Amino acid sequence: MSAYAVIGAGAIGGFYGARLAQSGQEVHFLFRGRAPYVSEHGLQVISPDGDFLLTEVNSHADWSTMPQVDVVIVAVKAGANEDVAGRVGAILKPGGAVMLIQNGLSGEQVFAHALGDAVEVIGASAFISVVFEGSNVIRHFDFGLLSVGAYLADYARGEVTPTMQTVAEELAGAGIASGLEDDLLLARWKKLLWNIPFNALSVILDARTDELMANDDAVELISIVMDEVRAGCAADGREIPREAADFLLEGTKAMKPYSTSMRVDFEAGRHLEVEGLLGEPLARARANGVELATITALYRQLKFIDSRQAG
Amino acid sequence: MSAYAVIGAGAIGGFYGARLAQSGQEVHFLFRGRAPYVSEHGLQVISPDGDFLLTEVNSHADWSTMPQVDVVIVAVKAGANEDVAGRVGAILKPGGAVMLIQNGLSGEQVFAHALGDAVEVIGASAFISVVFEGSNVIRHFDFGLLSVGAYLADYARGEVTPTMQTVAEELAGAGIASGLEDDLLLARWKKLLWNIPFNALSVILDARTDELMANDDAVELISIVMDEVRAGCAADGREIPREAADFLLEGTKAMKPYSTSMRVDFEAGRHLEVEGLLGEPLARARANGVELATITALYRQLKFIDSRQAG
Repeated sequence: MSAYAVIGAGAIGGFYGARLAQSGQEVHFLFRGRAPYVSEHGLQVISPDGDFLLTEVNSHADWSTMPQVDVVIVAVKAGANEDVAGRVGAILKPGGAVMLIQNGLSGEQVFAHALGDAVEVIGASAFISVVFEGSNVIRHFDFGLLSVGAYLADYARGEVTPTMQTVAEELAGAGIASGLEDDLLLARWKKLLWNIPFNALSVILDARTDELMANDDAVELISIVMDEVRAGCAADGREIPREAADFLLEGTKAMKPYSTSMRVDFEAGRHLEVEGLLGEPLARARANGVELATITALYRQLKFIDSRQAG
Repeated sequence: MSAYAVIGAGAIGGFYGARLAQSGQEVHFLFRGRAPYVSEHGLQVISPDGDFLLTEVNSHADWSTMPQVDVVIVAVKAGANEDVAGRVGAILKPGGAVMLIQNGLSGEQVFAHALGDAVEVIGASAFISVVFEGSNVIRHFDFGLLSVGAYLADYARGEVTPTMQTVAEELAGAGIASGLEDDLLLARWKKLLWNIPFNALSVILDARTDELMANDDAVELISIVMDEVRAGCAADGREIPREAADFLLEGTKAMKPYSTSMRVDFEAGRHLEVEGLLGEPLARARANGVELATITALYRQLKFIDSRQAG
């Protein structure tokens, strides 16, 4: 039994937190403005794995009432990392860990730097399709796997830690599969293998996954982008085999029509996660001496599109 | 005094033909369905260089009534080249010439192949902003230069021919500046230097020229694309200096807000000129051993967008 906190309880944090709570773990949500509504009405999850209403929710409006916990799940946008990293130490029990569910290749460094060596920082990638609706409804469409790896300085290869194993067991008890990785950096590049082409092109071409996969030119472009992601990963000394890209393409073809998270942000008029999803991988590849021309084009296009988004 | 025919009398063909006719040249327009309306109401040109109404127009609904002329100006979309090339010989006087105003790097070959060595084929690039409105109004916004070069087999370097000089003089008499080039292929690549980045990005990013030029990311991407056009041209053994690209960027910044021809087509729901503007230059570069990654990405994106256009 661990005690959890969920910071940034949007769709992703809310979903994993709700499932852990439903399975009997102690979970505290920092719900900010939503907190009173959730306290009164509970937290509802609608999911192909089964709907449920969580009636007793530890719903906090503010950091000040959050208790100390074993694991803080942070699921905020990268822009909030600095702020959260400065506050999260206060709600960690001795020996506690931070698990950051986020895209990009820099978030863990912010937390490791702020919290020091005594705190374990774990990076996680969520393979999930989920949205937050209204004040207390989490609508889960598909998937759910968490890919989890310990962060060591500059994303050095690590090992599976006892905390990672405990979290994985408790997630399994909540019906959530997780993949424990000894190489967080490789895991992140693997996530980018799908995330970069599909998030970018879904916004630039205004298309769902099924529309992209039904068009030969889009598939060809996705394949080129995936080759560049593999090249960026190789420049970090890690290998993603071509078969992994082919497998993802086939899997996406078989998927239900899906709007990527970037497209959901785009349609809501929100700013796009351009730096985390494309800028950081490009910068990392460039630092390793590799230019990724197609991803650079997508990056510039998305920055242009983002400049027109309201906020 | 030459007699001219204009085939494909849309905005561009219509504009140059109307100016030649107004200056006193004999000009026959193949106006198809518009022919009766233009015969009755004339052809109206609205232009910063001066408005005029051409009341006596040789307006033809069909090839069958077109007389033989000295110069046939062909200003159709590339998709119509085969059909027009098969018919145009019948309306050429002995020693007559075809002047093709079109983008792309293949149109002249179609005409040269169909017409044989006895017919001079001239390629022209129009630097102009003009649209056709309603049944008989040509609205000219800006520019007008025609860059003109003789076509020799496989776009070998040529020379300025007497026909080119005559046409240039008669254009000058109509107030149209032309540049006589001894290297059609270089002239075409120079046109592509602007056409590829601005046409492609104006559609993909749904933006006018001024909106692109006001955004650093768009300008950076345009510069990258211009470098690739220069590389494609270099692979053809021709050189476009970097200063030419810088000059075009500065010139575009100074231009009035402008929707490219591809964007005008896009907004009208018409098919996009993807092959002529991007596909052919890419194929030519590839045949010369050069891959242009960014232009390839734009090409695939435009093909996807074009697949959604009605017709």
